[in-house]
Amino acid sequence: MVRKVLVANRGEIAVRVLRACRELGVRTVAVYSTEDRESAAVALADEAVHIGPAPARRSYLHIPALIEAARKTGADAVHPGYGFLSEDPDFAEVCRDNDLVFIGPPPEVIAALGDKTAARALMAGAGMPLLPGSLEPLRRADQAHGVAEAIGYPVIIKAAAGGGGRGMTVVRDGEDFVRAYTETSANARALFGDPRVFVERYLPSARHVEIQILCDSHGGVVHLGERDCSVQRRHQKLVEESPAPGLPADLVERMAQAAVAGAKAAGYVGAGTFEFLVGPDGAFSFMEVNCRIQVEHPVTELRTGIDLVRQQLLIAAGGRLDFAQDDISARGAVIECRINVEDPDRAFLPAPGRLERFVPAGGPFVRVDTHGYPGYRMATSYDSLLAKLLTWAPTRAEALARMDRALAEFTVSGPGVRTTIPFLRRVLADEHFATGTHDTTIVDRLTGRPDQR
Amino acid sequence: MVRKVLVANRGEIAVRVLRACRELGVRTVAVYSTEDRESAAVALADEAVHIGPAPARRSYLHIPALIEAARKTGADAVHPGYGFLSEDPDFAEVCRDNDLVFIGPPPEVIAALGDKTAARALMAGAGMPLLPGSLEPLRRADQAHGVAEAIGYPVIIKAAAGGGGRGMTVVRDGEDFVRAYTETSANARALFGDPRVFVERYLPSARHVEIQILCDSHGGVVHLGERDCSVQRRHQKLVEESPAPGLPADLVERMAQAAVAGAKAAGYVGAGTFEFLVGPDGAFSFMEVNCRIQVEHPVTELRTGIDLVRQQLLIAAGGRLDFAQDDISARGAVIECRINVEDPDRAFLPAPGRLERFVPAGGPFVRVDTHGYPGYRMATSYDSLLAKLLTWAPTRAEALARMDRALAEFTVSGPGVRTTIPFLRRVLADEHFATGTHDTTIVDRLTGRPDQR
Repeated sequence: MVRKVLVANRGEIAVRVLRACRELGVRTVAVYSTEDRESAAVALADEAVHIGPAPARRSYLHIPALIEAARKTGADAVHPGYGFLSEDPDFAEVCRDNDLVFIGPPPEVIAALGDKTAARALMAGAGMPLLPGSLEPLRRADQAHGVAEAIGYPVIIKAAAGGGGRGMTVVRDGEDFVRAYTETSANARALFGDPRVFVERYLPSARHVEIQILCDSHGGVVHLGERDCSVQRRHQKLVEESPAPGLPADLVERMAQAAVAGAKAAGYVGAGTFEFLVGPDGAFSFMEVNCRIQVEHPVTELRTGIDLVRQQLLIAAGGRLDFAQDDISARGAVIECRINVEDPDRAFLPAPGRLERFVPAGGPFVRVDTHGYPGYRMATSYDSLLAKLLTWAPTRAEALARMDRALAEFTVSGPGVRTTIPFLRRVLADEHFATGTHDTTIVDRLTGRPDQR
Repeated sequence: MVRKVLVANRGEIAVRVLRACRELGVRTVAVYSTEDRESAAVALADEAVHIGPAPARRSYLHIPALIEAARKTGADAVHPGYGFLSEDPDFAEVCRDNDLVFIGPPPEVIAALGDKTAARALMAGAGMPLLPGSLEPLRRADQAHGVAEAIGYPVIIKAAAGGGGRGMTVVRDGEDFVRAYTETSANARALFGDPRVFVERYLPSARHVEIQILCDSHGGVVHLGERDCSVQRRHQKLVEESPAPGLPADLVERMAQAAVAGAKAAGYVGAGTFEFLVGPDGAFSFMEVNCRIQVEHPVTELRTGIDLVRQQLLIAAGGRLDFAQDDISARGAVIECRINVEDPDRAFLPAPGRLERFVPAGGPFVRVDTHGYPGYRMATSYDSLLAKLLTWAPTRAEALARMDRALAEFTVSGPGVRTTIPFLRRVLADEHFATGTHDTTIVDRLTGRPDQR
């Protein structure tokens, strides 16, 4: 079994992992940047190690500092959270080379699925439906242009090494293609150190639906149902829920079976997510696999009663899943809202500051995951996620009413601090969202600003 | 339907009721004493009416002020919460006379069940097992003494008009009986305005287990399973849980069926609780019916997914239960800890004050019901309950580990403020509690102080 886990992350996900460790009786090490020295994670962990200043490449992305922190504290495992190094196969490999259990898939699996074109080819081989597009990276503009013309516009150009909604450009017209190609490729090189891109059909109006899977290292694979993440701005999710409203049960079941088959084909181990688009015609297409815990994992936890981070730890320790697919049942409806310190009136620009007042929502069937606390000075160097607010209810309508109540009572204020709370309440009040007939264009529609992707 | 509810209570239960109303789209009126003007309930309600100063008889127990507040605000219903006027048949009747829906059973039912000897007689008629004792109030010491001698010691003398753990004396020896009778009767007169008492066998070592019921006004009756409330000090509960650890399923089922039969015999309407003692021999005996929402109702909510306060509102509005007994299923295990501002080292004396730091626990499968917030100056005139902390998990062992994690991260501090948190962690660590083999003597054992009842 794992005895001491180093959490190579910050913010709410570091807190989340620390809680799971504590509940399992596993000792913990937090790492922190200079800016995060007063973080909730530092306070909650058994030990805390300073690993450098912001920006992240000098601390949370600085592999030698992380390995040294693990060595110094005697940690025998590393949880990478999401973002940062969570999908970096090199980090997973360095952990392994240093006798540290990496709590995630093996490096080879991360590498195979992290290359988006290789993943597309692998999944095509496993019988997964894909959007029309290239199965190999495109290295020249004219080659990419040819693919786009063959597919028909609009298309989306994506970084082969990308993911998490970054490094993508929608092209609506052939005339814009070459410029868009050049920019996306340059952007991909800057973001991911890899200029390769590929081209795929773009669905202007679709639903983003994903399947959560859990795989142990003994061949056990289960799925835990779907999450609908169609409320996004700039490909970043704002609201997630389960079940996906209005989606036929047999469609979800086919997606889940495709994800299980894909996980088996990839030799997946750990918690992972298969992301799909569901078009207006009801057909689903594979997008990508996220080889890590997702921000929105609590949606699935509240519906199934299964603690995903606990499962990650047990799997990493070599355990077998102690439940079969038939033991998993989903109950009721769950909504998650991301409370970001951002100004929705100013294109969701970050608006952090000192949290003079911070009173999270509470009461029946409400869950809050946050690293915020009264008096917390939010670091400006990191992402703007302050809290995830979830509500459960027997039905979606009740879960939405409960969410509106919870958002109304969630108090965050301080000089310069703005949050997405008022905007989230507008989303809930939107007629299309309320009836579950919305799609990924909802944020553009509500802000009156076409999303510049 | 009910349109505007006046909440005739304070503290966490006022907040709980306000949340349920808001989720149903029902408007709300809070009432508050001078001491409670900065309460969370005042901030959450649509309107708030000042009804007088402490003590409660000048505000929360002052029926004319409450009726006037309802009249002034146009409220059409009253939720009494627990304690205060929640089981006062006169209040229920005055509400009815003023065309206010009283959210609770009809006054006649409250009166019949509030008289503990009448309730015993009624339940005996419904086939309910009772502890040996008197079925009628005893007006003379010698008469009571005769009953006690016939039963055999130890016995417990209880106020006929009592309830909620107050106005009771355990007598372990015949020599003490007459003095105990006289004191209990005087105490009953002072507490409840009624000197009548009755005598019952006392079980020094027992489990306190109760059954939650819901009854609509059309004859629909269901039970929602049990809660074990054996961790008590001075008959006040500290920890509650469901399922009752170690109790055979068929025993719980027989208690539940007895509660359903008892509710039907009493013509019960609304949410109610049948309290039982389970002796070391595994036999159960009826104690009393609580004609109101219980403090520990969230235990049942988290296990069944049914919002009991919402159901109270729907039933009061004349609705039918929209689920049958077979639709109710209980999932996993739930623990509730009461975080009181008290000093366990000083006989649980109240220790309120200004909450300089107040950071409730959060994260997976944690629920917090509280009226506390950072900076809140706790009134000294009321009970010491600050927060109810609940955890859910698939198994009791996991729920306990989660509770210990949640208690460890729950931060409450301020000048003079002490809480039960460290004591609760000792309860969780106790071997008998951890294995579910404890009984109602656990607090005495842990404090090293025999409970003076």
